[in-house]
Amino acid sequence: MAALLSDLATEILIPVASVVGIVFALVQWVVVSRVKLSPEKQSAGGNKNGYGDYLIEEEEGLNDHNVVVKCAEIQTAISEGATSFLFTEYQYVGVFMVIFAIIIFLFLGTVDGFSTKTRPCTYSKDTTCKPALATALFSTISFLLGAITSLVAGFLGMKIATYANARTTLEARKGVGKAFIVAFRSGAVMGFLLAASGLLVLYITINLFKLYYGNDWEGLFESITGYGLGGSSMALFGRVGGGIYTKAADVGADLVGKIERNIPEDDPRNPAVIADNVGDNVGDIAGMGSDLFGSYAESSCAALVVASISSFGINHEFTAMMFPLLISSVGIIVCLITTLFATDFFEIKSVEEIEPALKKQLVISTALMTVGIAIVSWIGLPAQFTIYSFGTQKDVTNWQLFFCVAIGLWAGLVIGFVTEYYTSNAYSPVQDVADSCRTGAATNVIFGLALGYKSVIIPIFAIAVSIFVSFSLAAMYGIAVAALGMLSTIATGLAIDAYGPISDNAGGIAEMAGMSHRIRERTDALDAAGNTTAAIGKGFAIGSAALVSLALFGAFVSRAGISTVDVLTPKVFIGLLVGAMLPYWFSAMTMKSVGSAALKMVEEVRRQFNTIPGLMEGTTKPDYATCVKISTDASIKEMIPPGALVILTPLIAGTFFGVETLSGVLAGALVSGVQIAISASNTGGAWDNAKKYIEAGATEHAQSLGPKGSDCHKAAVIGDTIGDPLKDTSGPSLNILIKLMAVESLVFAPFFATHGGLLFKWL
Amino acid sequence: MAALLSDLATEILIPVASVVGIVFALVQWVVVSRVKLSPEKQSAGGNKNGYGDYLIEEEEGLNDHNVVVKCAEIQTAISEGATSFLFTEYQYVGVFMVIFAIIIFLFLGTVDGFSTKTRPCTYSKDTTCKPALATALFSTISFLLGAITSLVAGFLGMKIATYANARTTLEARKGVGKAFIVAFRSGAVMGFLLAASGLLVLYITINLFKLYYGNDWEGLFESITGYGLGGSSMALFGRVGGGIYTKAADVGADLVGKIERNIPEDDPRNPAVIADNVGDNVGDIAGMGSDLFGSYAESSCAALVVASISSFGINHEFTAMMFPLLISSVGIIVCLITTLFATDFFEIKSVEEIEPALKKQLVISTALMTVGIAIVSWIGLPAQFTIYSFGTQKDVTNWQLFFCVAIGLWAGLVIGFVTEYYTSNAYSPVQDVADSCRTGAATNVIFGLALGYKSVIIPIFAIAVSIFVSFSLAAMYGIAVAALGMLSTIATGLAIDAYGPISDNAGGIAEMAGMSHRIRERTDALDAAGNTTAAIGKGFAIGSAALVSLALFGAFVSRAGISTVDVLTPKVFIGLLVGAMLPYWFSAMTMKSVGSAALKMVEEVRRQFNTIPGLMEGTTKPDYATCVKISTDASIKEMIPPGALVILTPLIAGTFFGVETLSGVLAGALVSGVQIAISASNTGGAWDNAKKYIEAGATEHAQSLGPKGSDCHKAAVIGDTIGDPLKDTSGPSLNILIKLMAVESLVFAPFFATHGGLLFKWL
Repeated sequence: MAALLSDLATEILIPVASVVGIVFALVQWVVVSRVKLSPEKQSAGGNKNGYGDYLIEEEEGLNDHNVVVKCAEIQTAISEGATSFLFTEYQYVGVFMVIFAIIIFLFLGTVDGFSTKTRPCTYSKDTTCKPALATALFSTISFLLGAITSLVAGFLGMKIATYANARTTLEARKGVGKAFIVAFRSGAVMGFLLAASGLLVLYITINLFKLYYGNDWEGLFESITGYGLGGSSMALFGRVGGGIYTKAADVGADLVGKIERNIPEDDPRNPAVIADNVGDNVGDIAGMGSDLFGSYAESSCAALVVASISSFGINHEFTAMMFPLLISSVGIIVCLITTLFATDFFEIKSVEEIEPALKKQLVISTALMTVGIAIVSWIGLPAQFTIYSFGTQKDVTNWQLFFCVAIGLWAGLVIGFVTEYYTSNAYSPVQDVADSCRTGAATNVIFGLALGYKSVIIPIFAIAVSIFVSFSLAAMYGIAVAALGMLSTIATGLAIDAYGPISDNAGGIAEMAGMSHRIRERTDALDAAGNTTAAIGKGFAIGSAALVSLALFGAFVSRAGISTVDVLTPKVFIGLLVGAMLPYWFSAMTMKSVGSAALKMVEEVRRQFNTIPGLMEGTTKPDYATCVKISTDASIKEMIPPGALVILTPLIAGTFFGVETLSGVLAGALVSGVQIAISASNTGGAWDNAKKYIEAGATEHAQSLGPKGSDCHKAAVIGDTIGDPLKDTSGPSLNILIKLMAVESLVFAPFFATHGGLLFKWL
Repeated sequence: MAALLSDLATEILIPVASVVGIVFALVQWVVVSRVKLSPEKQSAGGNKNGYGDYLIEEEEGLNDHNVVVKCAEIQTAISEGATSFLFTEYQYVGVFMVIFAIIIFLFLGTVDGFSTKTRPCTYSKDTTCKPALATALFSTISFLLGAITSLVAGFLGMKIATYANARTTLEARKGVGKAFIVAFRSGAVMGFLLAASGLLVLYITINLFKLYYGNDWEGLFESITGYGLGGSSMALFGRVGGGIYTKAADVGADLVGKIERNIPEDDPRNPAVIADNVGDNVGDIAGMGSDLFGSYAESSCAALVVASISSFGINHEFTAMMFPLLISSVGIIVCLITTLFATDFFEIKSVEEIEPALKKQLVISTALMTVGIAIVSWIGLPAQFTIYSFGTQKDVTNWQLFFCVAIGLWAGLVIGFVTEYYTSNAYSPVQDVADSCRTGAATNVIFGLALGYKSVIIPIFAIAVSIFVSFSLAAMYGIAVAALGMLSTIATGLAIDAYGPISDNAGGIAEMAGMSHRIRERTDALDAAGNTTAAIGKGFAIGSAALVSLALFGAFVSRAGISTVDVLTPKVFIGLLVGAMLPYWFSAMTMKSVGSAALKMVEEVRRQFNTIPGLMEGTTKPDYATCVKISTDASIKEMIPPGALVILTPLIAGTFFGVETLSGVLAGALVSGVQIAISASNTGGAWDNAKKYIEAGATEHAQSLGPKGSDCHKAAVIGDTIGDPLKDTSGPSLNILIKLMAVESLVFAPFFATHGGLLFKWL
């Protein structure tokens, strides 16, 4: 019994949805580009969102050519800094990718001694499959494709972000609603480009590989796993390197500027200010984009490789096999509609409407997507099929699979809302943290850490329930599609996420260009909402990383031919224990890296303040480039040890200790890492917003703690600074740790299964 | 083939060793009591350690009756505060113990429907065993015995500590060596009393139970597991309640005293100063004592219950069965000899010799104990025997078991040295943290957290290697005896540990009694060494908790009749994930508790400073009693939620989700909790010693950061305050979380196996 949707329709639907997504992204880009960054009079013609309106709300004195020119200048500096960093990073990435591609080819080639002969398939022994050497070659190719796609998508995301930041600032002169729309549209460019190009490249790759593999779908989808590995390896550099870059600059700038020199954030006199703004773009935009791209590619690959040995995989039913890609296709359409709610159907008129508007995006996309999933499950899957998993088989109906995808999707929403509750200063947890600043920085830190620990509880239960339901209904395939469900609205998720750093930059540019207090207030409001959504985005990224890793882990175990991972064997237990330790080791490295890089930045900033005459008075320009260089060099250098830990651990564990120990390591790193990642990210977010709560002074309680510069505020600034590396470097980087180790194990599984466990063989 | 040692010799050896330990403790107490706390001329007669020497080193002006009278007064206040807290705590403990005893009896009674008929044994089906009701009754009795023994040992430890603190202060007038010996002897009283009474009560209980059980050793040693549960339940109150008490007082006192009022630590004008000193005794002495007693009781019970179904258990070979108790007996003798090295064989003459002397204790006891283990393994075990584990059997030789015990012992030493490296200010990690204070509190916290994370690596590898070796050689019995090996030198470990808070108190008393600067310098040196050894003790407690929990987990799994705990089943995996979350939930509660209690303390201290005239001038005495009451009330109240989490989780997981999920929860909590516990404890220790490093200013580098009151020092004080709850409340309390859940599961295993998993049965 085949799916209702014909194979031809599937072959048309997926690329069409991808192209629609890309076109939509380009249209948004064109709309954003209509905000002019030159002092000429803006082109007339007012559409609904009011482009071409005159700057009626802005006081006359500042609405001059000078401000616009300055904005353009600063934008250019930020854009150049970000581009130059990414190019430097890509050189290292290039070298790494070539070496790693060779390792993949060699390791997988040795599985069958580089034989070019066909061999009996693993699961259906009576048919013949392509040689292991082909898997080695095609895995290497798909690895490179994944890496390049991630790189291009991240780069374009950074480009649009640095294109939009100053435009957001300028639009803020017209009103908060207009600024919001520019920032949000630009985020959408990034979201749709990434989701659609990821889907399109994956689709094309599968079809090209099929020309060679023909009916050997087992080999075909094994090779495709390289795509996930490529995407995730790129994410390692993006998240870790970008994370160190942005926080070295941020912490360094704050320590001297805010604390020693008492000048405001983003003051143009601070030599590290450009590096700080560059950091937002390379860390929070390019880094986060490649992280979520990695999750997306990995969950698709995990689902495909598990499905390749299901009943429809064995019977070569193309539509059913493409179910994961169909989900993503529908996701793009759903997100497109959702975006229109923010940009066209409604208009933001005041500051208070921003956060609800962003939250509405999450709810609308989730609700619509539930319908989308139901449709795809109904027409895209056989009414009943069989999944083979760890030596057992499981009959699954299409409606059961619908529940698997949907529970992942809704668990994502739950995680999002819980994260918001713990990190938004509209609720009591952050207000309690702010209140604890009364007794100084120490209690602020104690309360903040406790808040982060506590915020783990509900997300973990949400993930646990998703895992239990989807695992029970459809074994590892259920987990993989649950992860896909959580990521199906990735375009909207990324749009919301990218909106944050763009607004942050917009605020920075307003300050540096010397724009009025009212503009700064507007961009601050945009930024505060962005802080919360950034935390939601991180919660989302971590939740999906947990599900994806488990799916990859399951696929690895299947591929390595293990049927149980028994905690009661010493091999597995020590793996579990050491695996649970890895997130700590990794976090120690990344936090220390930020600390050391920040200290270097502090020295340079102090040097400039002390040696450049007229700097504090604003008569001389600081040397921004040296600070950019310090962040760049530090992040490239400091990225290597944590990167090596992640890349080498599975290779060492698998080669010397074998697949059982490696299974333990993966499970341990997963269950331990997800907790630290959530708590670190939420603790940091809470501190940041506790500080903003005191600064804004919106309530009587907040006013009793403030104003800026009070002892309370100083204590809050210390918390915020500590939270920076937690929430933007070590926390989110842990996603990469757990995902990359899992996908790497999956790709190398045939090698470990054949040649692994050397140490025990010797003993 | 039986052991070389006859059963009669075993029956004599164990009680004799216990009695020797108790007598040795009493002798030490008598020696300490010869330091007189009354202003009369001290009794003449100079033994080697110089009691009765005149105060030749002390400047005349201060060596007057007044100081001695003041010391005695302060000691009385501390002792009364501690006694009153413990009595209040014991009332709640009493209620809890009675309720929990009833639950144990009822739950275990229902296993066989309260039948009084004998039944076939679980493992040897052809013989008959005592009814399940007997196990219920005797488990309840042994539970109460364990709790009472732990309570009495903890109470006596607190008594000797509050008896010795002022005596240490007075001896410091004669020299640092004399003060050291008083503090160390008093620690030894606690160590030997606890180790020896724990062994003696266990031994007597086994012999009494044997009168009823006869040859049903399976039932006998199942009932004995209640002893471990009792010890560990008491530890829950001691560690969590004591931990909250001590840090609420400490943080509260510091926040107002040091930061707002700029008065030194332990200044008598600070209303919270007595509560702070009481806290050291109830938290670090009584709490830590009951924690280690719990570990000791649990590892003995785990080893016994696993051994009861080994070949010698089935053949009723008494000597071999008593191997765990023989190890502890030899441990007491070894520790006795080791103690003489510190108190009689060598003499401490200068400050620099203190830390090496304490470290030497660890090395000597470990080296001697290795020989002791070899002898016991040789004469106390059959040359070869069989262990049954998870449905398989394993032949083990006595020499293999020697390696299991020895590797646990040496892993403890490795953990101790690594902890010292990361927390002593003699090495670069703490010095780096101190250096990072140059840029403020934020970098101090970032570096400190990174240090804690990093310090996890080697201990985890040490534990992993111990587990792998002992598990491979002798299955779960190997793990249990490895834990016993680590705890075999517990008397020395406790002596070193208890030495710390006694010295801390001694310093406090010197300050409060207004003694000279030179005295305070000496007690500070004693205290600094105590800080490091306290961290070592915590590392040790955590390492042994990990091994003990695994052994208990293994015993639980055996008793519940599970043969595999497969991570690839949803039931187990969600248990693992949620289990790994529990330490975060628990830490969130304990940290928040300390924070809230400290805030209450701050308010009271501020109130007293503001409303009591003449307080700051030192003309009026503050109201110490109210502060003591605040700490007492807060700790009793705040202890309940984390306590409930620990106690209820296994009951809920086992009853509703069944033994597989519970196994996952235990494994998850273990592998995740041990990491947080180690990192929290070391981070806190490092911050404390970084502050002391700056204060002492012993090197050029340290002087460049100081002096007291500089910006660097202020940043260091903030780190120290944050570290307080991490290192003394939430970190060490996690030991209890992982151990207590495991031992509770073990005791309730028959109930869960029979009636558990209700939720899945309903679905």
